[in-house]
Amino acid sequence: MGALLTVAYDGTAYCGWQMQENAISIQEVLTNAINKTFSCDFSLLGASRTDAGVHALGQRAHLILSEPSKILIPKLPLVLNGHLPPDIRVMAAFDVPNSFHPINDAKSKTYRYTINNNRYRNPLLRDFSAFMPMPLDVAKMATAAKLFLGEHDFAAFCAKGSIVKSTVRTVYALEVAKQGDCVDITINGNGFLYNMVRIIAGTLVNVGLGRIAPEDIHDIILSRDRIRAGKTMPPQGLTLMEIFY
Amino acid sequence: MGALLTVAYDGTAYCGWQMQENAISIQEVLTNAINKTFSCDFSLLGASRTDAGVHALGQRAHLILSEPSKILIPKLPLVLNGHLPPDIRVMAAFDVPNSFHPINDAKSKTYRYTINNNRYRNPLLRDFSAFMPMPLDVAKMATAAKLFLGEHDFAAFCAKGSIVKSTVRTVYALEVAKQGDCVDITINGNGFLYNMVRIIAGTLVNVGLGRIAPEDIHDIILSRDRIRAGKTMPPQGLTLMEIFY
Repeated sequence: MGALLTVAYDGTAYCGWQMQENAISIQEVLTNAINKTFSCDFSLLGASRTDAGVHALGQRAHLILSEPSKILIPKLPLVLNGHLPPDIRVMAAFDVPNSFHPINDAKSKTYRYTINNNRYRNPLLRDFSAFMPMPLDVAKMATAAKLFLGEHDFAAFCAKGSIVKSTVRTVYALEVAKQGDCVDITINGNGFLYNMVRIIAGTLVNVGLGRIAPEDIHDIILSRDRIRAGKTMPPQGLTLMEIFY
Repeated sequence: MGALLTVAYDGTAYCGWQMQENAISIQEVLTNAINKTFSCDFSLLGASRTDAGVHALGQRAHLILSEPSKILIPKLPLVLNGHLPPDIRVMAAFDVPNSFHPINDAKSKTYRYTINNNRYRNPLLRDFSAFMPMPLDVAKMATAAKLFLGEHDFAAFCAKGSIVKSTVRTVYALEVAKQGDCVDITINGNGFLYNMVRIIAGTLVNVGLGRIAPEDIHDIILSRDRIRAGKTMPPQGLTLMEIFY
């Protein structure tokens, strides 16, 4: 039996999605919940390796059970949630063939990066946003955001030391919007390099602070130079919103 | 020296605003921060006694120092925040005469009650919303909300056993709006009885679930009978948004 799970989590307490020694991951806690539900062997493959402190509303994980199950797939969220802590929730489950691949079959992903742009930090958002006390020029950030659209070599927006075959990715949408005392950056693309969303957010913050001009984005992309882009913003501002298949 | 502080807090870890024995209150933590900042005697009076687990973005507290201070009032947030944990923040400070009274001089208060109306609970909102898995009819709730407007005897919406001279209050605005996977109830009034906002929210939930008709609100108010109104919704959905003077 194969099921695609939609998983939401508050990443604050975890070392990230991926199983690690000496730290508790979301994958491990979910694996434990599946172990308590089914007696057979199974595999669980996440679509995205979110980092420590990063949140998700639409992470996906592909569960393959080695034996047929009496539990119907639509009942999986209710059953698994009974074995999960309140900061992790299975929000939905869909029937997929075992040949389905949660990473390779993903068409695009949407992330949101939230910056609490307030003189003093909003305590209700402290685990769910980055903090920036200096005023951000959202209009300038929105202008700069347009220059990321399309297929580019995003080497300048990739954490150093990460090994990938190609640093070319396509950004389909990138929006910057003021929401109350926050600035939300929402990005959709066919895939993201390691820390790419957090570095794009850091670069847009530099635009918002007037440290670089919106049109500089073009040169920064062409440079392929990590030093030219902004700093990697902290993990707690990032949420994996949705993965499209 | 008299200063009116705007205080924001995540109420999750606290027994509420008001100082209590054997439990940590927001007032106590703020008092400790003031003690670390000033050597003189002082008084600190909050405008609203928020309950355990209730949040605030716009609580107000009146600080009177027994001696003149070298710290200018606009600098107070920065200085006090240096002695506060991240779940409590002083957001602003204003110069007010010592004759100012944070409770008696308040013209109106705005509260927001947030209900996560999702099949499964959004883990990012678990400390900042109530949870309702059954679909709520927001249009019906908005219709019912209008019947609360104006001056009424809200005895039916007051926690039993609370002692007040009068249960008459005026509701100036009451809005119900869908926000993502949440239903937000925002209410502004000249004052609120004990648990009044949480009982109004519970009554509007009954409307949203179709258990009572919107027009029943009229009779429930007239009845002055606590039993006729809905249940008291849990504290974590409630946020004190603003107090107007």
